Amino acid sequence: MLKLLHAPLTYCVRQSLKINVTKENYQRIFSCLFCNNVSEQKSKIDEEVAKLLALKAQLGDGPAPKFQLKTPKGTRDYDAKQMAVREKVFNCVIKCFKRHGASTLDTPVFELKETLTNKYGEDSKLIYDLKDQGGEMLSLRYDLTVPFARYMAMTKSQNIKRYHIAKVYRRDNPAMTRGRYREFYQCDFDIAGQYDPMIPDAECLRIVSEILSGLDLGEYVIKVNDRRILDGVFNVCGCPSDKFRSACSAVDKLDKMPWEDVKAEMIEKGLTEETTDKIGTYVQLSGGIDLIEKLLTDESLLKSKCAVQGLTDMKLLFNYLEIFQVIDKASFDLSLARGLDYYTGAIFEAVLLNSNTANETERVKGETVGVGSVAGGGRYDNLVGSFDPKGRSVPCVGVSIGVERIFSILEAQMKRDGQKLRTNETQVYVASPQKGFLQERMKIVTELWNSNIKAETSYKKNPKMLNQLQECEESGIPLVIIIASGELGKWGGQNSLCHIKRGNNSAKGEHG
Amino acid sequence: MLKLLHAPLTYCVRQSLKINVTKENYQRIFSCLFCNNVSEQKSKIDEEVAKLLALKAQLGDGPAPKFQLKTPKGTRDYDAKQMAVREKVFNCVIKCFKRHGASTLDTPVFELKETLTNKYGEDSKLIYDLKDQGGEMLSLRYDLTVPFARYMAMTKSQNIKRYHIAKVYRRDNPAMTRGRYREFYQCDFDIAGQYDPMIPDAECLRIVSEILSGLDLGEYVIKVNDRRILDGVFNVCGCPSDKFRSACSAVDKLDKMPWEDVKAEMIEKGLTEETTDKIGTYVQLSGGIDLIEKLLTDESLLKSKCAVQGLTDMKLLFNYLEIFQVIDKASFDLSLARGLDYYTGAIFEAVLLNSNTANETERVKGETVGVGSVAGGGRYDNLVGSFDPKGRSVPCVGVSIGVERIFSILEAQMKRDGQKLRTNETQVYVASPQKGFLQERMKIVTELWNSNIKAETSYKKNPKMLNQLQECEESGIPLVIIIASGELGKWGGQNSLCHIKRGNNSAKGEHG
Repeated sequence: MLKLLHAPLTYCVRQSLKINVTKENYQRIFSCLFCNNVSEQKSKIDEEVAKLLALKAQLGDGPAPKFQLKTPKGTRDYDAKQMAVREKVFNCVIKCFKRHGASTLDTPVFELKETLTNKYGEDSKLIYDLKDQGGEMLSLRYDLTVPFARYMAMTKSQNIKRYHIAKVYRRDNPAMTRGRYREFYQCDFDIAGQYDPMIPDAECLRIVSEILSGLDLGEYVIKVNDRRILDGVFNVCGCPSDKFRSACSAVDKLDKMPWEDVKAEMIEKGLTEETTDKIGTYVQLSGGIDLIEKLLTDESLLKSKCAVQGLTDMKLLFNYLEIFQVIDKASFDLSLARGLDYYTGAIFEAVLLNSNTANETERVKGETVGVGSVAGGGRYDNLVGSFDPKGRSVPCVGVSIGVERIFSILEAQMKRDGQKLRTNETQVYVASPQKGFLQERMKIVTELWNSNIKAETSYKKNPKMLNQLQECEESGIPLVIIIASGELGKWGGQNSLCHIKRGNNSAKGEHG
Repeated sequence: MLKLLHAPLTYCVRQSLKINVTKENYQRIFSCLFCNNVSEQKSKIDEEVAKLLALKAQLGDGPAPKFQLKTPKGTRDYDAKQMAVREKVFNCVIKCFKRHGASTLDTPVFELKETLTNKYGEDSKLIYDLKDQGGEMLSLRYDLTVPFARYMAMTKSQNIKRYHIAKVYRRDNPAMTRGRYREFYQCDFDIAGQYDPMIPDAECLRIVSEILSGLDLGEYVIKVNDRRILDGVFNVCGCPSDKFRSACSAVDKLDKMPWEDVKAEMIEKGLTEETTDKIGTYVQLSGGIDLIEKLLTDESLLKSKCAVQGLTDMKLLFNYLEIFQVIDKASFDLSLARGLDYYTGAIFEAVLLNSNTANETERVKGETVGVGSVAGGGRYDNLVGSFDPKGRSVPCVGVSIGVERIFSILEAQMKRDGQKLRTNETQVYVASPQKGFLQERMKIVTELWNSNIKAETSYKKNPKMLNQLQECEESGIPLVIIIASGELGKWGGQNSLCHIKRGNNSAKGEHG
């Protein structure tokens, strides 16, 4: 109870501080508000009162607290260089999505609070709520999948292939040095519609592979599993069905910790040693089509209808992955579980093998995923139905590209290789070593703009030649037009078109 | 005081409702919290208590209130068709910004509340605040200009040419049929740095003209004025300086109402009839370079140093506009005032002349602007300094393209002309009239993807031919590869490449 009341109460008191309530009144307020609560909480309240009163005393009647020049905790500005990396990544990703016929949708940055309720389990506490300013209770979106499902139900769409690139918000403990922020981009591609098994699922994996290969991120593997197989394993090993999801979340940690630790966690969560050991014999397996076929003859597993369905579909998926030429990237990995509750079938996750940042974890598609993970997703056939008043369901499968992680990797790569990405695309700079050429320069840039050429000139009337060339140098502008009269003008006729050589300030003339 | 406490208190009580506090306790809480307040507020409090208790009773132990399937008030989803229009507009706008050498920046969607304080005058009440969930007090951005100025001060940047396309948030009374939303795109281009007068200002106007011409929106005029000229006019006409801004906001309505009404508003705001009449002789003027020169000989105006500066710079601006070939679009209009306080020099606004939606008003760059307005901006030399701890100032000039308004106009145009914009870019659809061709179809799309060709095939194992062709028809896919065997396969060898003719289902074969 204290927890629930804590935040608004603090706010109340802070507001009250401004209106000069006495110490006695505070105590009355607090004791009043909590008069139904148990006494053990009283000391906490007293602490809080003391803290606030200390704060009040500190503020005193002195000058207003100093203005903070910063972005909110866990957020950052993207400067021009970072945006250039982002643009490069987004271009590659969008090109791929379009190659597969996707259109794009956009949803508001906030949703009705109730839209997000009961979607994220424990992580719901990370949702940013908006202040009640009269009207609806709103929350910032936590991912793009739930708004997409809300959209599908609201528009009664039966099928769509869409991508959505936008920022999402989580009041998480930011780990900014490791690229984890409270505001970050998600980059989702989803196929919704009633289709034959595993065809759209296979295309999602093909998309992951096109993007990761296209961005040249090094070797990677796409781990694949199926919730139905996992549930079947848990079932035949004697795990009670109400413990499936917690067993899942323990198994999901197998890429970060040894089996012994995972086993300990499962036992702690109430599974027997026997069950845990049996589960262990399955979830440590990984392989290809051979493993799928072997498991399809596993007498124990054959008792679970859902495991058989999952394995049969997995076989089909691997068949399609072969046709789509991504079979060499795919690994059937029984330890892959993924955190979100809403998955109902195939799940997958792409992991970089030679990542420089292999000790990071990253959130993709709503959950913490393994080391080096750069994409993840799966099938969620019931989420749209949970929004539909009549429960009409639209099967969906989708993938989320971990673009923030990819940004970090590319930025590190570029830094390592001393690579410089331009922050603008200017082709021609119009310069003059002499005074009085502003209007001439402006005439020439106008002609260039008219011809759809990206061009700039100095905004100063009489800029120094060195400054103009430095501007070209710094921005990586490849061409400069130099205009001059008199002796200087004779060099190259009236105007000169020069190639700026990178790395030093020398300019090679090319008579133009 | 009551107002300040109202929202958190309501929240407190709502939370408390959940934990079953008795009626007596509520009354104690309320009387406690307000024990320092005047008694006239007590009845309001009682009202509030009664309302909440009624709400509690209503909720009772009955079923949960029905789930609302909607987006928050004043917001909307953008569907695939709307996104296609947006993409078209953004492409044109971004191309233009890049043609002028701009890079791009991004800032978080929310800022520290104090960053937005005292920036928007009366409109501050429209700012969305986030709930206090422990930690900083945050608000959603209201425009892109204030975050840009905060960025400039924070990074101590001396100059930059940047564009920023992002959504901003205003708890305004939405007028959605007229395209006014609480969440909407802004599209800003700004030049920051210490340069010679009017050169960057002229480039902003050139940019507006490139974009409006490029989007083919019909005839338009760019009204230009200068805050210094207006202030000078107010000064020499006897308006006291503390009434400059309210005189400004009255004058700004001259495009929507006759002079008599504007005059009445100014008199109501405390100006004398004599002053108002004098102001009227100036602010109803508009023209070109001739008018500027005429005013530069106006004995009365010559007494105002700032008017002379403004007029001298205006002359220079028109000179540059001629070089930049936008002079025929520009009109020096003394009635243009614009609402925002932070403008310090040139101001401008582009207005469509033959708009179908001429009775709309739209918000551009932070304020309500005139009829048919599709872009606006101006010079704001002191805003960055207001964020800098040492008050170091960076002169800025910028323009905001009213893209939401442009979206509405283009959507209406397309509807009127029966024009259909594709929502995806698929070039080839792979179809088969026969069963059993799934794997063949998948092989072919794989080859197409490998060759960077945008291609799709049905996600069904054995789709009907008609459905496949309808899919092409609806999505506007220009080419279809039809594969078949046996008798059907003989037509055109093994595979056939067909052009889909729009408007009916006939497909013209082209042997491939």
